[in-house]
Amino acid sequence: MRRNFLVLALAMAISHVACGADNNTTGHTSPEPPPEVSSKQADSMKTRLASQSSDQVDKLGPSSNALPPVPTLEDLRMVAPALARYTEGTLLGDLWKRPELSPRDRSIITVAALITRNQTIEMPYHFNLALDNGVKPSELSEIITHLAFYSGWANATSAVAVAKDVFSKRGIGSDQLPPASGEHLPIDEAAEAQRAARVEQDVGPVAPGLVQYTSDLLFHDLWLRPALAPRDRSLVTVSALIASGQVAQITYHLNRAMDNGLTKAQASEMLTQLAFYAGWPKAFSAIPVVKDVFEKRPK
Amino acid sequence: MRRNFLVLALAMAISHVACGADNNTTGHTSPEPPPEVSSKQADSMKTRLASQSSDQVDKLGPSSNALPPVPTLEDLRMVAPALARYTEGTLLGDLWKRPELSPRDRSIITVAALITRNQTIEMPYHFNLALDNGVKPSELSEIITHLAFYSGWANATSAVAVAKDVFSKRGIGSDQLPPASGEHLPIDEAAEAQRAARVEQDVGPVAPGLVQYTSDLLFHDLWLRPALAPRDRSLVTVSALIASGQVAQITYHLNRAMDNGLTKAQASEMLTQLAFYAGWPKAFSAIPVVKDVFEKRPK
Amino acid sequence: MRRNFLVLALAMAISHVACGADNNTTGHTSPEPPPEVSSKQADSMKTRLASQSSDQVDKLGPSSNALPPVPTLEDLRMVAPALARYTEGTLLGDLWKRPELSPRDRSIITVAALITRNQTIEMPYHFNLALDNGVKPSELSEIITHLAFYSGWANATSAVAVAKDVFSKRGIGSDQLPPASGEHLPIDEAAEAQRAARVEQDVGPVAPGLVQYTSDLLFHDLWLRPALAPRDRSLVTVSALIASGQVAQITYHLNRAMDNGLTKAQASEMLTQLAFYAGWPKAFSAIPVVKDVFEKRPK
Repeated sequence: MRRNFLVLALAMAISHVACGADNNTTGHTSPEPPPEVSSKQADSMKTRLASQSSDQVDKLGPSSNALPPVPTLEDLRMVAPALARYTEGTLLGDLWKRPELSPRDRSIITVAALITRNQTIEMPYHFNLALDNGVKPSELSEIITHLAFYSGWANATSAVAVAKDVFSKRGIGSDQLPPASGEHLPIDEAAEAQRAARVEQDVGPVAPGLVQYTSDLLFHDLWLRPALAPRDRSLVTVSALIASGQVAQITYHLNRAMDNGLTKAQASEMLTQLAFYAGWPKAFSAIPVVKDVFEKRPK
Repeated sequence: MRRNFLVLALAMAISHVACGADNNTTGHTSPEPPPEVSSKQADSMKTRLASQSSDQVDKLGPSSNALPPVPTLEDLRMVAPALARYTEGTLLGDLWKRPELSPRDRSIITVAALITRNQTIEMPYHFNLALDNGVKPSELSEIITHLAFYSGWANATSAVAVAKDVFSKRGIGSDQLPPASGEHLPIDEAAEAQRAARVEQDVGPVAPGLVQYTSDLLFHDLWLRPALAPRDRSLVTVSALIASGQVAQITYHLNRAMDNGLTKAQASEMLTQLAFYAGWPKAFSAIPVVKDVFEKRPK
Repeated sequence: MRRNFLVLALAMAISHVACGADNNTTGHTSPEPPPEVSSKQADSMKTRLASQSSDQVDKLGPSSNALPPVPTLEDLRMVAPALARYTEGTLLGDLWKRPELSPRDRSIITVAALITRNQTIEMPYHFNLALDNGVKPSELSEIITHLAFYSGWANATSAVAVAKDVFSKRGIGSDQLPPASGEHLPIDEAAEAQRAARVEQDVGPVAPGLVQYTSDLLFHDLWLRPALAPRDRSLVTVSALIASGQVAQITYHLNRAMDNGLTKAQASEMLTQLAFYAGWPKAFSAIPVVKDVFEKRPK
């Protein structure tokens, strides 16, 4: 049996393939998809992808908006049979089904790692999987905006190029996107005063402009946008820090994530998920900092 | 109103678009563009880009040298309206106009960050903006050569692929490029002896080949090439170090940059610029090292 | 004279170019290529590449599987003449011929750096050069699988997309690839017990899932696969760590590499090679850790 697990992405690049219809039958265009998705649903994603042939796609040639070709599981087999085995057996068959973290959380972590590391090749597959796993279009949109600040502007631009096609093929319109500006979540004045004082002390003598933008733009605007729950925004941020090897900021943001509701068991499993999607060394480098945060948290 | 701020890049990929002419009217092909460019000029860049339609481009299909499609501001709006707002309002409308750093310096920093982080998607736009902002073609060429050493050979190769098209569309010929070899700037013998001794002590016992190349190739050749002023070369180097999270070398190179004429106010604002283009965490990780350099500099 | 040193990659993207034949005459499709390759052979590679014209390629247009266009040495000259000089003179004419490390080892290091840093643009050239330099197809395949774990899954996926074309054009079929699973090398029980105990202590309290995968998947499976000699697998791992700036794991893996037969002179020259392919800062950041390993090794 042939399971072209990445081929949807390629299909999306081909403007003449009329595949929008079957993509619109699983409920992900409704404004309120279920927040939790069972691993059974992840399986159905694999099956749905498997029903598309890469041969069919290859014949059509590129369109002017063509994304680069995305390897299928069959491609992996033609180059690295063991990699195909690990992908199918360990990642899709085991990691994504572990109970410590929901498929939705795993998708948030994985998407954050891919955007942070500018790995456009797997974005089409994982953007679609995220939407299937219960990440709302508005949340995926907001993750991209958030990571413009936490991984660099061009990373967000690259993600937009992919998400535009994914959204278009799934019939996701602007009514499902978060507004450019609007209502803010209430701010925790005490915590914000503490954060601002620390940054003023550390960064103020070096880069006052950076202090100002950090306050006005990040903590009095971006972080208060309701399109992404604070706990999810923190999960994105910590994943980005680990995936890019920026250990110095993990302490603050992991504590903030846990203040926002991320459990220790979830943070632990986040590291396991990131080992695969950002590489073992990045996960191992984060361990001492995470350990220190765990030990110093009030019980 | 529609402002396709990144669309020029796409247009450049289309060999049948005869748009070379209007690109050649703003003085950037003259051998001596003005070193300082007002923010008004940056605005005219936005306007010029806005006059090009991405629809027109989309119809033409890819050429054999096609770069991947570059998202426009309209694309950003279709995926992440807030990201479009931040791009238009905060970046283009505010950051690039801050008086602490000239548009030319901001372009040097941004281009260095993009090349170092291999972010080809925004290179066409920012290579053009750099040329509009007074970076000479010979300087952009030399920045790419410099970063082959400071960010890895393939980063330079990727930048060449983009710059080739940018140069071609602007009619920039080999007469405007720095020679492969030739006259060198005079060397500061005392400073060089000190540098060489330190590297010999630190690196010599581990990698004598690296010591040799560092001396012969970098500090007795590359750094002495007149195509880029030492101060600008240092600005590129420090930007590359921060953008790639390599904090260990910041101390030496930031001191060298300031010896070469970079002011403390400029170095501070460089960090602010890099927060947007390399992500907040990279800027924050550099802060303690920069602070230490500032404090230890003789007044 | 025109030497299009990167053009082979482009040629491979063109499905109608019948260039498979001359690629199959140098012995690299035989199951046992010579392990050592002289620098003369590296020269013949340059010559062979030089005989292909990029113009010819440009006329053919992209195929549906087209890789992005790869700059030739001529392209480098059109943008950065000095970069072309350094590439031809220093890299190809000097670095790759240094006697401290065989061309095969240099290729292993370079390929590992490119995959770790997701630099697809130079992969076609260096995958071919690696095969010419005596890296077996099964070894290149296994390097990709190995780096899925040590640099992130999407890095391996990107490498598969390139290797698929390289293998196809050279007529490398699945009979030359390592099996998905099978016989394992014998395990060093004492060393493995020591490693497992250390990871259990460091990582166990933070991420027990990661401990389990590290043991079952990496050290009782991946590392025991016979498709890559332990010494070469270590060389790939250490190169990946240095190329991605993950210095924390160098101590363990460089010691393991030297236990597996990597000499101090080879490790030293590996740093020199990586300075060019991962950038000077990455090599310099590794120096103190490598120095410490060298000093503490039993004589």
